[in-house]
This record gives sequence, C-alpha cells and structure tokens, in this order.
Amino acid sequence: MSDELPLLSVRELKALEDASGRPFASVLVVKKLAIKTASNGNPFLVLDLGDRTGSFGCTLFSDGTVFDTVKAAGEGGVLRIEGRVDYYQGRLSPKLLKVTPLSEDELGAPGLIDNLVEVAPEPAAELWAEFQTFIDSITHDELRMTVRGVFEEIGDTFKWTPAAVSMHHAYRHGLLEHTIHMARACKALLPLYREVDADLAMAGILLHDTGKTIEYEGSLATKRSRKGILQGHVVLGYQLARKHGIKSRLDAERLERLEHIVLSHQGEPEWGAAVYAATPEAVFVSMIDNLDAKMGMVQRTLRQANEHDEFSERLMGLNSVLLTKPVSPAK
Amino acid sequence: MSDELPLLSVRELKALEDASGRPFASVLVVKKLAIKTASNGNPFLVLDLGDRTGSFGCTLFSDGTVFDTVKAAGEGGVLRIEGRVDYYQGRLSPKLLKVTPLSEDELGAPGLIDNLVEVAPEPAAELWAEFQTFIDSITHDELRMTVRGVFEEIGDTFKWTPAAVSMHHAYRHGLLEHTIHMARACKALLPLYREVDADLAMAGILLHDTGKTIEYEGSLATKRSRKGILQGHVVLGYQLARKHGIKSRLDAERLERLEHIVLSHQGEPEWGAAVYAATPEAVFVSMIDNLDAKMGMVQRTLRQANEHDEFSERLMGLNSVLLTKPVSPAK
Amino acid sequence: MSDELPLLSVRELKALEDASGRPFASVLVVKKLAIKTASNGNPFLVLDLGDRTGSFGCTLFSDGTVFDTVKAAGEGGVLRIEGRVDYYQGRLSPKLLKVTPLSEDELGAPGLIDNLVEVAPEPAAELWAEFQTFIDSITHDELRMTVRGVFEEIGDTFKWTPAAVSMHHAYRHGLLEHTIHMARACKALLPLYREVDADLAMAGILLHDTGKTIEYEGSLATKRSRKGILQGHVVLGYQLARKHGIKSRLDAERLERLEHIVLSHQGEPEWGAAVYAATPEAVFVSMIDNLDAKMGMVQRTLRQANEHDEFSERLMGLNSVLLTKPVSPAK
Amino acid sequence: MSDELPLLSVRELKALEDASGRPFASVLVVKKLAIKTASNGNPFLVLDLGDRTGSFGCTLFSDGTVFDTVKAAGEGGVLRIEGRVDYYQGRLSPKLLKVTPLSEDELGAPGLIDNLVEVAPEPAAELWAEFQTFIDSITHDELRMTVRGVFEEIGDTFKWTPAAVSMHHAYRHGLLEHTIHMARACKALLPLYREVDADLAMAGILLHDTGKTIEYEGSLATKRSRKGILQGHVVLGYQLARKHGIKSRLDAERLERLEHIVLSHQGEPEWGAAVYAATPEAVFVSMIDNLDAKMGMVQRTLRQANEHDEFSERLMGLNSVLLTKPVSPAK
Amino acid sequence: MSDELPLLSVRELKALEDASGRPFASVLVVKKLAIKTASNGNPFLVLDLGDRTGSFGCTLFSDGTVFDTVKAAGEGGVLRIEGRVDYYQGRLSPKLLKVTPLSEDELGAPGLIDNLVEVAPEPAAELWAEFQTFIDSITHDELRMTVRGVFEEIGDTFKWTPAAVSMHHAYRHGLLEHTIHMARACKALLPLYREVDADLAMAGILLHDTGKTIEYEGSLATKRSRKGILQGHVVLGYQLARKHGIKSRLDAERLERLEHIVLSHQGEPEWGAAVYAATPEAVFVSMIDNLDAKMGMVQRTLRQANEHDEFSERLMGLNSVLLTKPVSPAK
Amino acid sequence: MSDELPLLSVRELKALEDASGRPFASVLVVKKLAIKTASNGNPFLVLDLGDRTGSFGCTLFSDGTVFDTVKAAGEGGVLRIEGRVDYYQGRLSPKLLKVTPLSEDELGAPGLIDNLVEVAPEPAAELWAEFQTFIDSITHDELRMTVRGVFEEIGDTFKWTPAAVSMHHAYRHGLLEHTIHMARACKALLPLYREVDADLAMAGILLHDTGKTIEYEGSLATKRSRKGILQGHVVLGYQLARKHGIKSRLDAERLERLEHIVLSHQGEPEWGAAVYAATPEAVFVSMIDNLDAKMGMVQRTLRQANEHDEFSERLMGLNSVLLTKPVSPAK
Repeated sequence: MSDELPLLSVRELKALEDASGRPFASVLVVKKLAIKTASNGNPFLVLDLGDRTGSFGCTLFSDGTVFDTVKAAGEGGVLRIEGRVDYYQGRLSPKLLKVTPLSEDELGAPGLIDNLVEVAPEPAAELWAEFQTFIDSITHDELRMTVRGVFEEIGDTFKWTPAAVSMHHAYRHGLLEHTIHMARACKALLPLYREVDADLAMAGILLHDTGKTIEYEGSLATKRSRKGILQGHVVLGYQLARKHGIKSRLDAERLERLEHIVLSHQGEPEWGAAVYAATPEAVFVSMIDNLDAKMGMVQRTLRQANEHDEFSERLMGLNSVLLTKPVSPAK
Repeated sequence: MSDELPLLSVRELKALEDASGRPFASVLVVKKLAIKTASNGNPFLVLDLGDRTGSFGCTLFSDGTVFDTVKAAGEGGVLRIEGRVDYYQGRLSPKLLKVTPLSEDELGAPGLIDNLVEVAPEPAAELWAEFQTFIDSITHDELRMTVRGVFEEIGDTFKWTPAAVSMHHAYRHGLLEHTIHMARACKALLPLYREVDADLAMAGILLHDTGKTIEYEGSLATKRSRKGILQGHVVLGYQLARKHGIKSRLDAERLERLEHIVLSHQGEPEWGAAVYAATPEAVFVSMIDNLDAKMGMVQRTLRQANEHDEFSERLMGLNSVLLTKPVSPAK
Repeated sequence: MSDELPLLSVRELKALEDASGRPFASVLVVKKLAIKTASNGNPFLVLDLGDRTGSFGCTLFSDGTVFDTVKAAGEGGVLRIEGRVDYYQGRLSPKLLKVTPLSEDELGAPGLIDNLVEVAPEPAAELWAEFQTFIDSITHDELRMTVRGVFEEIGDTFKWTPAAVSMHHAYRHGLLEHTIHMARACKALLPLYREVDADLAMAGILLHDTGKTIEYEGSLATKRSRKGILQGHVVLGYQLARKHGIKSRLDAERLERLEHIVLSHQGEPEWGAAVYAATPEAVFVSMIDNLDAKMGMVQRTLRQANEHDEFSERLMGLNSVLLTKPVSPAK
Repeated sequence: MSDELPLLSVRELKALEDASGRPFASVLVVKKLAIKTASNGNPFLVLDLGDRTGSFGCTLFSDGTVFDTVKAAGEGGVLRIEGRVDYYQGRLSPKLLKVTPLSEDELGAPGLIDNLVEVAPEPAAELWAEFQTFIDSITHDELRMTVRGVFEEIGDTFKWTPAAVSMHHAYRHGLLEHTIHMARACKALLPLYREVDADLAMAGILLHDTGKTIEYEGSLATKRSRKGILQGHVVLGYQLARKHGIKSRLDAERLERLEHIVLSHQGEPEWGAAVYAATPEAVFVSMIDNLDAKMGMVQRTLRQANEHDEFSERLMGLNSVLLTKPVSPAK
Repeated sequence: MSDELPLLSVRELKALEDASGRPFASVLVVKKLAIKTASNGNPFLVLDLGDRTGSFGCTLFSDGTVFDTVKAAGEGGVLRIEGRVDYYQGRLSPKLLKVTPLSEDELGAPGLIDNLVEVAPEPAAELWAEFQTFIDSITHDELRMTVRGVFEEIGDTFKWTPAAVSMHHAYRHGLLEHTIHMARACKALLPLYREVDADLAMAGILLHDTGKTIEYEGSLATKRSRKGILQGHVVLGYQLARKHGIKSRLDAERLERLEHIVLSHQGEPEWGAAVYAATPEAVFVSMIDNLDAKMGMVQRTLRQANEHDEFSERLMGLNSVLLTKPVSPAK
Repeated sequence: MSDELPLLSVRELKALEDASGRPFASVLVVKKLAIKTASNGNPFLVLDLGDRTGSFGCTLFSDGTVFDTVKAAGEGGVLRIEGRVDYYQGRLSPKLLKVTPLSEDELGAPGLIDNLVEVAPEPAAELWAEFQTFIDSITHDELRMTVRGVFEEIGDTFKWTPAAVSMHHAYRHGLLEHTIHMARACKALLPLYREVDADLAMAGILLHDTGKTIEYEGSLATKRSRKGILQGHVVLGYQLARKHGIKSRLDAERLERLEHIVLSHQGEPEWGAAVYAATPEAVFVSMIDNLDAKMGMVQRTLRQANEHDEFSERLMGLNSVLLTKPVSPAK
C-alpha cells in the first residue's frame, strides 16, 4: 500500500462492488465519536467517518494501532486514512490500517474542506465583505457600534457556523449566508414598510441568530453544545446583544427593542421564541426570517436536484415534495 | 324636526348622555338585515345600522312607516335617517321616524363613502394605476393576457373588496392594497431569489386572492356569499385563473404552475390551502402573502393607535399586543 | 438454466436459506425505478422488483446486459426474470441474468396479475356491473348524465385505481370497491335520512373520489402523479364533475351542490377538504366516506389476519391494534 | 290580576315593547337555581325561568312572598307565575307576584310539557315500541337478556334523557331518538359488513350511551350529575352493561366485547373514550355513532330553520354554517 | 351628603335595588384607567373602580370636577368617593361627586388594603420570615449569596406581587406564598430524590419566578409591564439570577445550572419556557411548580367555595369543575 | 461442545468479531414469539431471544430439533441455549443446536433473573415491607380494608409488574417501586396541603395503577394483554377498587371519591384518564404521579449513564436530553 493510492470519496467507496480486502485511501472527518467501556473494562471507540458525499460507522478497540490517533483527533478531526475495504453486518466497515491527522497547512489546501463538508454556494470572503456594508449601513451610531461589537467577539465562529443542524442552510457558512440573505431582503423591503425603524430592523437581523455560534459547536462536525442545550440560541443571542449594547452605551429604549427582536424572532414559543413579536420591527424580522428559511430550503433542494427526477424527496420544512424541474423557456 | 339637523356619526350618537327623546339625523349603511317572522305570523326586520365609527341594532315591525324603505334598501343600502334617541335594554336603540335612500348622485358626494366604511389609506385610483404597471411588467405574453383577462372580468369588484372579513386589510380597497403591497415586495425580492420565475411569481401574486371577489359580497356590508361558503376563495380563484389561462392559450405547464400558486397560497390546509406549496414560485408567493398579511395588521394597528396608549389591544393574528409608540428620535 | 425453472414468488425467494448462487426464475413488476448518475458520469438504475408477496431492491449498471430492457419497461413494467440468488449487504439482491418483458397476451393469462398486485376480493367485473345500476338509480336526468359522462371519460382508469397509496382499500380495484361500498351504504341509509336529496347524495358518492384516477398513476406500481401533487384529488375531481355537469346542462343549483360534495368530502381541511361540508348531502357523504374507510381497513386486516395471532399489528388509521379472532359461535 | 290572563311564552314576553308594569301570566320551568348568601347573612335565590322559547334570570330575596315556593320547587320544578313586566339592567326581569307549583295532573295536560322543553319530533311512545323490536332482534339469548336487564333498570329515565347537554339530539327523548336512529342504521348496514357480529353490534348500540341516564339529571332542566362529573357516562354505561351481563350469565368473551364497545364508542380518548376501538364491532358502532350525531345536528337545524334565511348560524359540531334551503324540485 | 355615610363595598352597591339617586360613600382603587380623546378633541377618562368584592366602569369628562384628581391618582390609586347611585345602559354607573385621594397614613389603616384587594391567607410577615430560613438553608456560600443578593434588590416588590394575573395564586402576596409553598414541598421531597442537588434545587425554587416582580406592575391593580411584554418573566428572572450570581462569584457550572432552572421552569416552551428542563434539578423544580400551581388553584377555590354549592365553577387550569364539599367525617 | 462453555450475555455475543461458527452457551428469555405459516403450509417460529443486555431475532423451522422446546416454552420462557455463532442478513443470528428449559429451581438461582431482565434498584422484599406500612397508615378502617383486599387479590403480580412497557419505571418491580415512591412523596407533602383528605389520597395512590397488573402480562417478557387492550388499566384498576370497596362496606361517598382518583389519575383524557380530576385528592394524586414519573425517568437515566458522556440520549418523556454529569463538589 502506498501514498500513490488515489483518494476515494465515501460515495465511491460504497459504490465498489465485492471489494473485500481491496486497499484504499481517503481524507475524512470524524463526524461523531463516543468512548464506550466494554464488559472487560477496556475502552473502545464508536465513530462515524465521512465527507460531504456520505459517512460510515466503525468501531476501534484500544489495542488497535490507530486507537490513540483517532481519540486525539476527536469530533471534527480530519484524518488521512489508509485501509482495506471490509463489510460488517452487510455495511461498509473498512479496516483502518494507518491514520494520520492533517496539519493546519494541509487543511488549508484548496478544495480540501469543500470535499469534507457541504459549503454555502457563495464564496465566504465575498459574503463577509458584503456583511460589513450592512453593518456600516446602520446610521445610528451606538446601534452600529453594538452590532460591530458583537461581531468583533464572535466573527470568526459566525463565519463558519451552519444555520441549523438539519433543515434550512444546514451547511458551512450557512448562518452567514442566511443572515446576508435576510439583510438583502430587509434592505429591499424597508422602503415598502416605512413604519419599521430601518436601523433597528437591520441591527436585529444581523444579530438575531448570533446565539447559534454558541449553541452549535464543531466546524466540521456540528452538534449542540452544553450551553446550547441548557440555554438555547435565543437567550444566548439576547445575552450577546445586551452585553455589547451596554458597552456601546446604546440608549435603554433601543436596547430593549433590539433585545426584543432577538427574543421573539423564532415566531412562536413552540419554535423557540421567548416571547411573541410585539413591535413593528420584531414582526418584520420574524417574517423575513421565516421567508428566507423556507426559500433557503428551496434553493438548496434545487442545487442538489437530480436532472432525472421531476420532484425532490419530501421536505420536512415544506410538508411536501418540491418540483425541481425548471420552467420551460417561453417559445 | 328639519333638514337642518346636523348629521351625527354613530360614535357621536353613543356619546350623548341621557338623551332620550332628542331628535337627530344621520347617514348610515344597513350592515346586516334579517327578516324574521313573529309568533303572530307578521314579518319584522332585525338590522344593524352603522358607519365607520360604529353601529347599533334595531328592530322594525311591518306596520312601522319605515319598514318598506329599509327592506327595499337591503344589506349595504345607504339611508338618510331622522329619528329620536332611545334606549332598549340599556343600549342605544333610536326610534326611526323618517328614512330616505340616498340617490346614486348623493352617494358620489365627496367624503360620503369614506364616512361610512373604513377605507385603505392610499387612494384607490393611484393604487389601480400602479396595479396596471404590475400587469404590464409580466413579459410572457400569454401569462400577461391571462392576468389581464381575469381583471377585465372582475376588476370593478376587485377594487372595492376588503382582503378579509376581519383580520388583515379588512376594509374597502383592502384587497387591492394587499395585492399591490405583495406585488411591490415581490418586485423588490425577485433579484434575491433568482430561481423563482419572475413572471409566474408576479402573475400568481396578482391572481392569488381574486376568488375573494366572489367569496365576499356587498361593498358596504361585507359577508361571505353562498358561493364563498360552498367553494371557498381558493377554488374560486383557481377557476378564474384556469378559465382565462385557457382563453389566452397559456401553455399547459405554466397554467398548471399558475393554478398551483393559487391553490397553495394559504400556506397550510387548515388555513384553507387545497395543497401544500410544491414549486419555488408557490413557496415564494405564500411567504410574501404571510409577510404582508402580518405587516398589514401592524400598519392598520399603528394608524388606529391612540397616542395615550403605549400598547394596542391584543391582536389575534399576532397572538400579542403591539407596541404602538414610535421609536424615539436619535439624540 | 432453462425455461423449466419453476416460477418463485418473492416470499419464496426470501425464504431460501443460504442459497447464494442458486438459479431461479420469477415474474415480477418494476415497483420503483430511478435513473441515477454515477460519479464517472455513467447512468445506473436503482429499482424495486416485486409481486404481491413482497419486493427487493437492486442496482443495474449501464454495461449490464439487462440494463436496456429494464429501463424500457419503466415503472409498472412486468418482466420474466432469470437469475442467481445473491445477497448484498445482507439482503436478498439477486444477479439478473436474463430479462424478458411480458407481452400483452402473456399479461392477460389467468391469475398472472393477481400474483403481482393485491386485488380487491370482489370480482371487478361484477363490481362494475353493480356500479352501472347505481348510476341508473339516479332519477334526475341531467345529474345522471353528468355522472355517466365522467365515467365515460375515466371509467377504465377508475376500475384499476386503488383507493389510497397506503391505508384503506390500498389495492387494485380498491377505488371501485370503496365507491361501491359507499353506494350500498348510501342506498341502505337514505330511507333513514329523508332530508338528504337521494339523487345528489348518490351522484356525490359516485363522483367524490374520481380525482384519484388522475392523482395516482401506474396500475401496477402506484405513486402520486405531477397533477396529483400540484392540485390534489379533491380539486381534480371537482374539475371533472364541473366539466361534465356543464356539458350535461345540469342546473346551476344542483351543479353547485354536487361540486360542494366533492370539495368537502374529506371532512376536515387538514385531511384535504377544500371547505367544510355545509349541505345535508355533503355531511351525509363525508360521514359515509369516513365509515367505509375505517371499515375497509377492518375488512382488509381480517382478510390478512394470521390464525395464530389474536391481534393485528397496530393500524395507523385506527390508532390501535385490531382483535382479529372471530367471536366464538354461540353454544 | 286574574286567572283570565292569557299565558305568554318567554319569547312573547321579550317581544313586548315598553311594557313595564304590565301584568302577565306564564307557565315556566326552573332551569337553574342557586342559593346564595348576601353580605347580611340572608339567603337569596338566583334563578333562570324558561320554556322552550327562551329564558330569563331573576333574583328572589328571602322576605319575598314567593321565596319558599320557588325554593321548594327546585331545578326542574314547573310553576304557574303571575307578575308584572319589569327590566333590570336593561334585560327582562319581571316581578313575581304569585307562584303556584303545577300538580302532577296539570303537568300531564296535553301539550304542556311540549311548551316547556324541546322534544324529539317523533312520538316517544312509538319510538319506545320500536326500541323493543330492536332488543328482540338480538338472537343470542344471554346478550338479549343483558340488554333487556339494563333497560328494566333504567328504562323510564332513558326515555326522557337528552343525548347531550348541547350539540346533537340535545332535547327531551333525544337519547332514545339517537339510539333508535343508530339501531336503524345498524340494521340497514349490517348486511354490507358481514364480518361484524350482528348481535354484538346491535347490543352495543342499544347500550352505548346508557351511562347518560346517570350522567345527566333533571328531565326539564338538564345538567351533569355528581356521578356524571366524577365518573363520566362511558364508565357509568360500562358498569351497567357489566352488571347485567353478569346477571344474565353472558359468556366472558361476549361480555368483554360488549364492554369494549361501550368503553370505546366515543372514538377518541380526547372526546371521552376510555380506549380506542379495537374490535370490528367497536369500530362499526363508533362510526355509526359519529354519523348519526352529525346527521342529528343537520336534522335539528333544518327543523329550526327560518324560511327567510339561506344558511343557519355556525354549528360548532360541523365547523360551518349549513345551507338550509331545500334543493329546488326538478323541472 | 356627609362624612357619616357608611362605606359600602362594590358588592353592596350592586345589591341595592332601584337605588337611583341614593347617596353613598366608598373607598375604592382605580383598577384600570385609559385616557381617550373625544371627537371634539377633549380628553376623557374611561376607568374601572373596584375593591375585592367587585368593580364597575365609569367615564369622566374633562369638565367634571373630579377629572383631575382621578387622572392624578392613576392606575392603582386609592380614592375615597362620594356620589349618587346611577345606572348607565342598565349597569351600575354612579355619578362621582367628590373624590379624595387617601394619604399614606390612611392607606396604612388596619384592614384597609385587605378590603381593596384579595390577599394571601397566610400573614405576609410570617411568610417572609419563613422565607429567610429557606435562604439560610442553602449551604453553598456563593449560591446562598446569589439568592440573598436577588432579594436585596427586589424583596419589597416580591412580597406584594401576585403569582399570576389570573389563574393560580393571583392575589396580593401570591408570589411569596407560592414560592414558600414550593420551598416547603422541595424540603419535604429532597430526601426522596437524592440525585437532586439540594442547594441548587432550593436556590432555583426561590429564584424561579422573580422575573414576575418586573413582569407585573402595580400593587393594587396588576397588569403586565412594558418589560414584561417585551421580555417575559422567564428571561427577566434569568437576568436577575445571572447578575447576582456573577456578583457573588458563583462558579460557572452552578451559575449555568441555576440559570437553566429559571429558563426551563415553565415546563413547555408553549407555556413560556425558553428551553426544556435538562438537568435533574430543573426537572424537579418544574414538577414542583406544576404541582403547587394546581394545588394553589384547589386551595383558593375551596376558600371561596359557597356552602350551598357542591361543585365550583369550571376552573380553566383544571379543565373541570371541582368538588368543594369536604369529605364527610368517618362515622 | 460441552457444559463447560462459559455463559455469554447477548452484549458479549454481539461484541465478538468475525466469530462465525464459534460455539457458545447462554441463558436467555424468549422475549417475543410468533407462530407463522410458510407457503408450503408448515409452521415456523419467529422469535426474539434476549437478556438484560440486549436481544436478537431468529427463525426456527418445524423440522429443527429445537422447534418443540422453544414453542412449549412460549413468551417469557427461560432457556439454556447452546449453539454456533452465525449471521443472517448481517445481523447476529446464531444456529441453536441444543435448547433446555430451566427448572423452577434453576430459575431461583441467585442473580439469574437479574441477568435476564432489568430490575428496580431497591430490593423488592424491602419495598414490599415498606408498602405494608403505607397500607397500615390509612386510619379509616373500611378504606384500609379496601386497599388490603385489592392487594390480597393481586399482590404477587403487583410485585413483579413494570410501571410501563417503555418510558418511566419500565422494569421488573417498577410498579411497586413507582407506587412506593409516590406514597413517600404523598406522606411528605400531606402536611403542606391540609385540605387533602390524607386517607383517601394514600389509598388512591396505592391503588391508582393496580389495573396494570392486568394490563401487562408476562413477568420476563412484558406486553399488553387482551384485557389491557380492550379495557385499559384505568378502567381495570377502577373495577378492582370498586369490587373491594363494596366487599369492605366502604361508605358510598368515599368509594366514589376513591374510584374518581383511579379514573382521573392519568391527568388528561388523551393520556388515558377517563375523566378530569375534580376533587382535591384526585388533583393531588395526579400531580404526584406526574412528578414521580418524570423523576423516575431521571433516576433511571442517571443509573444507566456512561461516565464518558455529558448528556444522555434524548428522552421522549422529557422532550430533551439530560445532563448526566453530577454537580462538581463545592470547593
């Protein structure tokens, strides 16, 4: 077995037929990792390895040579793997022979991350640059400073976080993309709803989901964090807005209205809102959130659509399949 | 009693204290009218008379001198009334002494209709002119002809219909206003959601609620029509779109997608949709409908807000009161 | 391998133990067929083959000799298959060696279709003959002509369609059987509910589910059609009733009441009704529909019951298991 | 004031205009009666008096001359009343001057009860005779004896009880009428559903609501009894069936199936069923119950319909108004 | 009219019959007050005056002599009123002739407040003393300091606040009483659930509803405050716990668990919880909260029960009436 | 293969890698057993074998030597098994070579049952002794005799029954443990809620779930019995209380209140209650039931928690994961 082995994706590994024993190499991320104790008292690892094309599970015992490397990598760790194809209980379950963690440099190689996780289709750098212009568009000084303060604290995480664990914008940069899309919609709609305070609405949109940078953890393998489970992103985002609003000496009334947008943006308490939207800005933001969440599902489904199929699978968020065939061009 | 009596609104009539027997004059619309049979076999009328400031109920027996005039006027009839203030069971219940139906000319007098029913705040003529530009903006010929065909059939009614019996945009021209607001939002958002077919989305928005011109009847006193109860505006609007699509030789695929937008725009079957939205355009239209319905409630509540109160009454559609105080201006 | 191989059902194939490599022959229907694109750009087929005793999945690559025949047969195609038993990922996944589509003549062979799909227990021809007598029992001429007109258009399809994709009467001829059962119940109950117009109720029952002939497609492998997804059988059936009502010059009032029965028969909007039942006939039809749907589940469960088991599996439609043991005969 | 005063109904009393002080006489039933204690420690009565045309409330203090007679009559007592028309807080609130309880003989006067409470339209004696034939139609001896035993215990009460406090068949004899209607429907449908045991289904229908004879109390003024609140009619009816089944030595299996029909007939636990229907007979009975409850609302609404109105008021049980105009006769 | 007039309660005022014009005196609290603008531009007041026995509405115009005094008193103001009994639209609506605000001294008069609002049955001073012992029982120093810190900030308000605007413990001192009752239950149950951290559970109970001191405002006339509407008591209480936890240098883990108890104590998001309970302590506290809320409704209903009635009115929180007759003593 | 083979648990069997053909021995319980008929008319068995560490399925044909032994053992039978490891469809599916039913004596061997099913952590004998003291604590003689009577009838079964098939206290002795925990909580809380009749509350708690001894059957393999499906444990427990109450000559009022506690203890009809709790005792018991059910889930989850994991899996009954890490000890 040598370095010259071509790197196979998980989808390609699974497509091999009757390949037991065949050597292969792949670069994969540790999607899930649990440490269990066997009845003899020895620890063993149960893990999922995957890339953006799929994943498979395997079990590693403590006397295996790769045990320590995988345990050290942890959830989200990226590994170069060499092994032999094998099947356990009828499912792909390769033997891992050699496992090497990727260095920071290697991780930066062009396209590598893109092969490991689903990424927002618009380039993150451009999205981030556009994001700054939305912050700058807030004319009220303390409000703009409040927003800027939050992103100085969480900006790097914010850029990578998905907008959800499943459902809409559930991929790398998804939160940045969803927030930008809402900001664009906000800017387009503000001239139509003059009773909405433009600065508060824009600030509310930029901050509404920032609690998710704390609620989710792991940039390559996302799960809800302890804080996320115990407090929820609504309260966490409210705390962020409050902290930086006070720091920026934002007047009490605007701070209260800004906090209210964050606390109410989920729409209904059963979806996670702490209170119902009770200001024009809060109603406006929660409606735009709902619109872009649904349209984000539509966009993602169309991107992943197979040209042979007329309809997508059933989408939970829409309670329906989606017609993915484009409209025929006019004659 | 003479013609010189100043015309009182219902609110002013109710504000009179201890006014039993005092003569008055008003111009009022018959809001509700039911013909009942007394135990002696004689018919009598139970009716509500009102204007945009309120209403009161009264009962007329067949031997009363005004019985025939009111019966002939029917629901939605506009009457000049002279009477004496009286109370029945503690509520305002004037004696009607003289009742004259208003002529077409008198009805056209400036401001008269505006005193009788709540009217959309934007002038109907300007809204209607803007509406034409949205029809013209549809580039696909047969689609534009389909939309134009529907409004040639129902245009006059469409202009007067409220968007709902209660809830959002529930006032004269309300349907025109709500549809225009959606068309504006559609135009503003289309550049952000490129996967949405612009012509279909705009046509769908212009047609989505046209069934309400049949579901509701009476321009001054609105109630659900027999057709409205037995078929519902979703199916009635679908029928209108279908009829004019076929007439305009719209291709089968676009017709199907247009019909689907109408059939699914209510969002959820329990709110009246025949099917769930299953095309990008249908999801888009139903989300804009939801957004403008909620924002329409906000706008109307702010217009009616009392400067002495911080919050509105509880709004059914928002599950909450609304903070109606505007944001203080920045220092 | 030769023609002399006995034909095995899917249940028999699955019951073979450790039969890898054993040759077999079967007549099977293509239940599902999707064309996918492999990462190397080549198309491959993912399909389910089955008969009334069960089904299994398999994958065919474009260089396989049977690829073209299966692709041409499509969903619902019936194939004579010769192959060798094999297992993939622990599940039955035979190698297909020779595949021959059945000719029209062969499909007509006695019992063949009955082996492929579950069929209503009453003979279709007798059901269809009885169905004509229900049409003839409608005394109002234009109403009878309306019903007859619909079945002249859709009759052949109507005879084969199941009443549902899953749940009640979900098998070949199921829709015909369910409609006949409702017509019988209607005839039995009409003398008890004199305020129900007998002709309208019977016409409504015969037409209420006709939209399903368009909503479902494929007589051997049923799925929802594009039209079914985008419009739903309630609106499709309403359209059929309306078209033939107008053609038969049915008076406007009866047409409206007939359309209303179709639009409201599902009972509740969340179950698919466009409006709530608001005429005596519509309430009557929706209640009979509900009764026979539930009793249909009971009948089917009793037919399939295993004499060794006291209770059935849990039935979704009843929220319960069903006691399938018959009542002991009286002493 | 004298005996010659014509007896006025409540509807006629309310229709009098400006009649303060006018003497009147009526025969009325005490619909509700509560004994309260005033702040000075004296008891006073708060009561509703009514007949089938309506009711009004009044308050009686302990020093009034009629206090003792009304208190003794209690809820359901029938009184001949003489008084003077008066209004309290704008509502009819006559002064009661003389109150005489009606003797048993007077209560039996033709038409008297019919004027006091709404009564099932079919004559009770004929219904009761037909009821016996349904009991006799049960061929299984112990099962028939079980049913007969229950009605020997509760028959008199059963004949008078309404089927509900509000909603369907909510009037005198309503329970008898509803049960007969279900038995007729059962008899008509049994030939169509052969898998249903005819004797069990008929016995289950006759007994299913017998707990209501204990749940409701008062034949002229109905309310839920203490036992009704603490146990509910489902459990009370189950207890009746069980007691007489054991007495009649019904075999354990049939008794269990009969009890199950009673325990499950309400359909869904949230409507009061103790368990979901899990036998063919129980599903059958619960479906017929549902059908006749809905059709009973339709029948009652049509009976009460006003010829001037096209639609009824909104019916809670149907979630809709009902079109009460009969179908126009065929040309 | 003189000072010697006996003070009447609202219940006594309403019990007067035909008392128009009769002079009276009362001490009442302004329960609700809204400033409206008449069509002539003049302000007028719409208000409710009441005591613990009931309330009535009245309207004051700006030229009335009492206008300014009432406006200055505001909601919650306590007034000595002299007037004449009158009725408007059939309801008690006295003419107010002389209005004097009560001084602080007068408000302190024994029993005065008790006549104005419903008060918890246990003496507030004793409850408050017992409350201190529960704080002292927390053995973890920083946790105890955190709790003490919160009550140093809000203690006075906490003592007066009701536990709800309606429903359970909805009266003066109700929040203190409900919290004490929960603390007693917590102390009694802790030995049975050893896995629950006693200090955290007790601290969580003492703090769980402290946000209500901000959510509700007005000690004599309670309504939700602006902050209460925009943030809700769950988030407000979390903020209080957090602020004092940080101030008391409570370790991060305990602070997080304490905050989680407050955020999750409402049980279900639809009842107001920000997250579901996810620690043993949080489950424990939310269950005790639920138990004492329900038992509090039972206790209050029994206290208010009328000895003549067997059952209470229907209680929203129990979905039922309550049997208020005590169990008969054993023989 | 010999007796000396060490006994393996199911978890240990599954942990073996690539062990096809390896001989093994185990003591296992028949968790599920269904007799099916093959297409050739021969019966075969589909069964689950397991112990407290897990289970696996297998199929036995009638010509297998072990067929008769397993069929005779039935569900809940305990068998000593010798076989060879094998896999069918990728899952563990051993060949059974020799099967011996365990004798009563062998079943009594220390620890044996404990290895087969999950058992309540507190020793059953001690729980049962404590249970007697709770019965003895009921001071009302007939009430105590009623409770004692029920447990004389069902005691042995009661001791073994789990409190649920899944969810809370779903293990051997679980019902005894849950009832004891509720009795302890009742005793601790009674001094705080004086309006609750102590004897009735305690009797109600001891009896509330006794119907489960009939609803569930099988002490080693639990499933709902025929009676459990057709009547439900609420009605079955009510029947037990009623029978022994009458036998003990309990006065009618206490019997009614006791029955009501059993009928209402599930809280909401959709959870199985026959009626809503409507007495102080019934509200009290249903709240304690809810509290201990939730805390029982917490206790069981903490017992099973893995020290490597911070949170448990999602618990259906809590709608959440549970933080299973104990609170760090105070510094």
